[in-house]
Amino acid sequence: MTVPESTTDVVVIGAGPSGLMAALWLARCGVKARIIDTRATKVFRGHADGMQTGTLDIFDSFGIGEDLYENAAQAVEMTFWAGGKDLPLKRVARFPKWYPELGQYRLIHTSQGNTERALLDGIKAFNGPEVERGVTAAAIDIDESKIGDAQALPIKLTVRHLTEEELAASSKNDTVPQPGDFNYNPADEPYLKRKASGKEGTTEVIHAKFVIGTDGSRSWTRNALGFEFLGDDTGDESVAGILDCVATSNFPDFHIQTMIAKDGHGCGFVPRENGLTRIAAPVANRADATPESIINSLKEIISPYEINVTMIDWYGVFGTRHRVSSSSSKHSRVFLAGDALHVHSPRAGIGMNFSIQDSYNLGWKIAHVVKEISPLHILKTYDEERGLTTKQLIAFDKALSEQAPLGGNFSVKGTRQGLQDGLPFTSTTAIEYEGGPFVAKGGNSITSKQHLAPGIIVGRRIPSQTVEKHANGEPHEFGKSFPSDGRYRIVIFAGDVSRPEQLRRVERLSQVLELPEAFLRRFDGQGIAPQDVFETLVLHTASRDEVEIADLPAFLFKNADPVNQVFVDNNDSRTWTLSEAYSKYGISRDRGCLVLVRPDRYTMYIGELEDATELIKLMSSVLI
Amino acid sequence: MTVPESTTDVVVIGAGPSGLMAALWLARCGVKARIIDTRATKVFRGHADGMQTGTLDIFDSFGIGEDLYENAAQAVEMTFWAGGKDLPLKRVARFPKWYPELGQYRLIHTSQGNTERALLDGIKAFNGPEVERGVTAAAIDIDESKIGDAQALPIKLTVRHLTEEELAASSKNDTVPQPGDFNYNPADEPYLKRKASGKEGTTEVIHAKFVIGTDGSRSWTRNALGFEFLGDDTGDESVAGILDCVATSNFPDFHIQTMIAKDGHGCGFVPRENGLTRIAAPVANRADATPESIINSLKEIISPYEINVTMIDWYGVFGTRHRVSSSSSKHSRVFLAGDALHVHSPRAGIGMNFSIQDSYNLGWKIAHVVKEISPLHILKTYDEERGLTTKQLIAFDKALSEQAPLGGNFSVKGTRQGLQDGLPFTSTTAIEYEGGPFVAKGGNSITSKQHLAPGIIVGRRIPSQTVEKHANGEPHEFGKSFPSDGRYRIVIFAGDVSRPEQLRRVERLSQVLELPEAFLRRFDGQGIAPQDVFETLVLHTASRDEVEIADLPAFLFKNADPVNQVFVDNNDSRTWTLSEAYSKYGISRDRGCLVLVRPDRYTMYIGELEDATELIKLMSSVLI
Ligand SMILES: Cc1cc2nc3c(=O)[nH]c(=O)nc-3n(C[C@H](O)[C@H](O)[C@H](O)COP(=O)(O)OP(=O)(O)OC[C@H]3O[C@@H](n4cnc5c(N)ncnc54)[C@H](O)[C@@H]3O)c2cc1C
Ligand SMILES: Cc1cc2nc3c(=O)[nH]c(=O)nc-3n(C[C@H](O)[C@H](O)[C@H](O)COP(=O)(O)OP(=O)(O)OC[C@H]3O[C@@H](n4cnc5c(N)ncnc54)[C@H](O)[C@@H]3O)c2cc1C
Repeated sequence: MTVPESTTDVVVIGAGPSGLMAALWLARCGVKARIIDTRATKVFRGHADGMQTGTLDIFDSFGIGEDLYENAAQAVEMTFWAGGKDLPLKRVARFPKWYPELGQYRLIHTSQGNTERALLDGIKAFNGPEVERGVTAAAIDIDESKIGDAQALPIKLTVRHLTEEELAASSKNDTVPQPGDFNYNPADEPYLKRKASGKEGTTEVIHAKFVIGTDGSRSWTRNALGFEFLGDDTGDESVAGILDCVATSNFPDFHIQTMIAKDGHGCGFVPRENGLTRIAAPVANRADATPESIINSLKEIISPYEINVTMIDWYGVFGTRHRVSSSSSKHSRVFLAGDALHVHSPRAGIGMNFSIQDSYNLGWKIAHVVKEISPLHILKTYDEERGLTTKQLIAFDKALSEQAPLGGNFSVKGTRQGLQDGLPFTSTTAIEYEGGPFVAKGGNSITSKQHLAPGIIVGRRIPSQTVEKHANGEPHEFGKSFPSDGRYRIVIFAGDVSRPEQLRRVERLSQVLELPEAFLRRFDGQGIAPQDVFETLVLHTASRDEVEIADLPAFLFKNADPVNQVFVDNNDSRTWTLSEAYSKYGISRDRGCLVLVRPDRYTMYIGELEDATELIKLMSSVLI
Repeated sequence: MTVPESTTDVVVIGAGPSGLMAALWLARCGVKARIIDTRATKVFRGHADGMQTGTLDIFDSFGIGEDLYENAAQAVEMTFWAGGKDLPLKRVARFPKWYPELGQYRLIHTSQGNTERALLDGIKAFNGPEVERGVTAAAIDIDESKIGDAQALPIKLTVRHLTEEELAASSKNDTVPQPGDFNYNPADEPYLKRKASGKEGTTEVIHAKFVIGTDGSRSWTRNALGFEFLGDDTGDESVAGILDCVATSNFPDFHIQTMIAKDGHGCGFVPRENGLTRIAAPVANRADATPESIINSLKEIISPYEINVTMIDWYGVFGTRHRVSSSSSKHSRVFLAGDALHVHSPRAGIGMNFSIQDSYNLGWKIAHVVKEISPLHILKTYDEERGLTTKQLIAFDKALSEQAPLGGNFSVKGTRQGLQDGLPFTSTTAIEYEGGPFVAKGGNSITSKQHLAPGIIVGRRIPSQTVEKHANGEPHEFGKSFPSDGRYRIVIFAGDVSRPEQLRRVERLSQVLELPEAFLRRFDGQGIAPQDVFETLVLHTASRDEVEIADLPAFLFKNADPVNQVFVDNNDSRTWTLSEAYSKYGISRDRGCLVLVRPDRYTMYIGELEDATELIKLMSSVLI
């Protein structure tokens, strides 16, 4: 019997949140890809529930997740209660989980099923591949003689299309919600059943340029590559039962994310979508975790307050592990992301967020290599950038786990401090990459002039500020001008262009960018339009009564619509908006500056308007 | 041949914006109603396009209009240009069309088709009646012997179900958009065709309690009642062609609502949804108005700037009329609303808004009479309240028309001033009803203590402020707590309930409200639950660490969920939100006050917490 063979550019193994983000990016960039998953369906209930503000912002940049956000419970604060045998249970602390610097979205809690649906809907909207369910990766082989040729297909991935019987046997007892069930969502309808492919029971060999292994903590890909999963697990002495339920309670903070310490035990609530509450409470050991034991354990701790559980949606039992794969990629051809790369405790609600953001870092880079925009070597930056983040992630969770072992005796003071101080990190707002090809500082031969825009940090995502559209005065979140569409953005903070000498600086910048050797014309005659790779944005500070859009160099808006490219930070025509984008960014209102932003909205470079040549050099190193 | 007879509670004649709002209210309140319209379909293109912030707020209170808002063009400012034979065309003024005091929504411009669809979708969502299309009111008869009995059916309305042939003959040449057409909206699909009723070609007699005539400026109902339409029309000397189109232009403010004066002529643009632009330009006379003549007239005025029209969506020609019906109702059984009641110039973009708000005033009142919550006599307040508003509307539009005759030589200064100063009125934010049964001031024997809350004006809608939910600290727009669901709201501004004497005042208030003679128990044993007619809201100023919800009198939240009823204006637990609801309302943070709000969110009464007895008296006069 011959094994059917096929080719594609990228295969994603595992359709959890991380794999779906990879597929979303590839779909958005129009790259041929397939995504497979062993399981018969997506997740519908439970699992990860914390969606951090930074992840919501990324979802927004793809135009997805609005429903998710509207229907979830927001977590704007957290409370701590403590008591003991002779001490009545009392609220001992409260802290805000959100403040404006963390971004426009507030932290929400919603079932992972909703997060996966948002990603799946996004993939569909961008004409990406459907997830091939009941398909398991079985063997992988890399032809090392071909790995240097970006457009070669060095990977041979063997996959097994499970029969319905195999699938039924292997599938967990995760039931698929039916109409009328609690939390059944009509929007899930396209995803309730595995679709017949006609390939059931067969083995297929896929030849691919790249493979992304997002197959979870027990990653088959990681094992197949021979990587180790280094770290340690705590044993049964620190496990917690987690239960999603509908309940009523007279506990005063039942609608706030709360942690409660009493008599050496710890438990907590998280308010959720649809009136659900997630409960976490200690259980004696893994075998002992039943909905009943979890509820009883909680009841004991919160007494004299009472809880009445009326419906159970999902439950599980979890311990603390800290493990990291010994490597995050092989030959820059096969990559690991998400739980396949790192696991830790669910305490801070960040695992899924970091998993999604791994592939958010990787997706556009692979797309640019496949589309012959960038050379192969840029893919090393994935290992560097997410390697650093992973280290920080594990260190953060270890410190937190010491303060607050799952289900155990936690330090209110230490836990509170750890969680509060950790917000810039856990929200992912303060994730910062070190110098490298895509970050012009430190290791890069080109160095940014960070002092020109202290509010925009090279290596971090550029924060949003409220500005106005020059064309119609409409207030505009500047962050919305950085959609995830695979384009670099040259942001010209043009300063006060009503001053003739400042306008001349902008004109000279435009002239340099227009030179044949500049990157904007790099792909001339190669079938790639510059507007597919770059976009120019202008944010100036002049009065709209002194400067018209037509006064700015037309080249900056070639092939595009200045209505959505020219913004102003000057509200002289009204009193009800603040003009503070420049001041929040720390940029001179007179002189402005030049900022280069990567397709994932991370800041790549900051310089003077005269530094276009630096920009050109910088881009040369990452473009073909 | 016998004429089929049928009965219903309310018939709405005419399914324009005003009639649809009436039907929406009745559907929301669960009142049996029918709505008929002569035409075969709804409006799809053109017509009224300005949706004022106050109307958007009303839509929001029914949970409708979100899409409409998202997809429309916002108008945050307006510009004026002037020039002449020897003077180059120049921007001469700019003013903001929105500021926070006007409400949370900004003014938008979108086709009346979208507004009608939002209303139709809302009626459907509340299980209201489908519009019976191709059905004309033909005769009306009121049995005066029955008008005193609220539950009698004194009206005999004869309607004619048109045959397809009759319908085709009478229908305007308004074409129905087809898939693929510009501005075709899949959401319109349920409304593309008249549905067969099986009654075509027959005449039907409907016996009803009430009839609402919202059949437009040529109102059949008005004529049938024998009312006159008093006022005047301007002739051909002041007509303007109005054209909705897709166009490009190098006119600098082409994306801003603009008026242009040159050589004794005036024209203007309004940016619209889907990249449309509405153009208004003078035409020689009605007969002369073609798309070409309108475009050419505009071209002349904006020269040397150019415009290139690539698609025409809709056009028409309009003059200025000022007419008001001699009466707004007959025997408090048949009512006129919208254009049937008043017409004026389209200049300020408010006719549809006032038309919708007429029936917004009327709908819940009729519902309360039908549901035996209120006596018949409350319906007089419709004539009083909307009569006053109509007078103000006509006066406003007359003054404006003098400054800016349609298509004519307008005074930039006067027009600008008139429009800018008029914003509180045109946005409908400042619409204020005089004292009467539903407004405890002036004519009412009970007088409000207006000074206790100068930021909430008796007779106006209570403005929204940002507060927090006590239960979870979530920031909350207080305005969202006043949905249009037919309920009165007793708003207890409880002040600083951490002070024992203040908490006692709230407790005493609760005790009075609990008395058997209080209105909350008025319907005991009559099949009407108090929570269907009243809701209690509490907004206090104490720290959430000093006061728990459970400390407040439980009676206030009987049959309800305090999570959505108790709010706090005290942000001591964080720094990023402002605590200014009390100060904006002008209420003492210590002592608070008591506010009664009508089902349409108009403020009915303001008093001290001790004034519950006044409240009881006031309510007695409007309840059965
Ligand atoms: C109780 C709990 C609470 C949590 N709470 C949070 C939280 O609040 N916030 C947060 O951010 N994170 C949280 N996490 C962590 C989060 O669940 C994970 O980090 C996240 O799901 C990882 O996503 P992933 O896509 O990397 O892997 P997974 O979601 O595990 O997806 C892996 C997929 O790969 C498939 N697969 C495996 N092997 C193969 C194969 N050989 N071939 C094909 N497919 C394969 C699997 O079927 C699976 O669908 C929590 C975890 C738990 C358990
Ligand atoms: C060019 C233009 C621009 C405008 N711009 C704005 C604007 O920007 N903002 C704004 O607020 N207003 C604007 N207006 C005014 C606005 O269009 C009207 O005020 C509004 O449509 C009135 O709504 P209505 O429901 O009262 O009447 P209509 O919309 O006229 O609806 C009346 C309905 O009754 C039906 N009917 C009539 N007779 C009978 C009968 N005998 N039996 C059954 N049905 C019958 C008709 O078929 C029709 O559907 C504008 C008007 C024009 C012409």
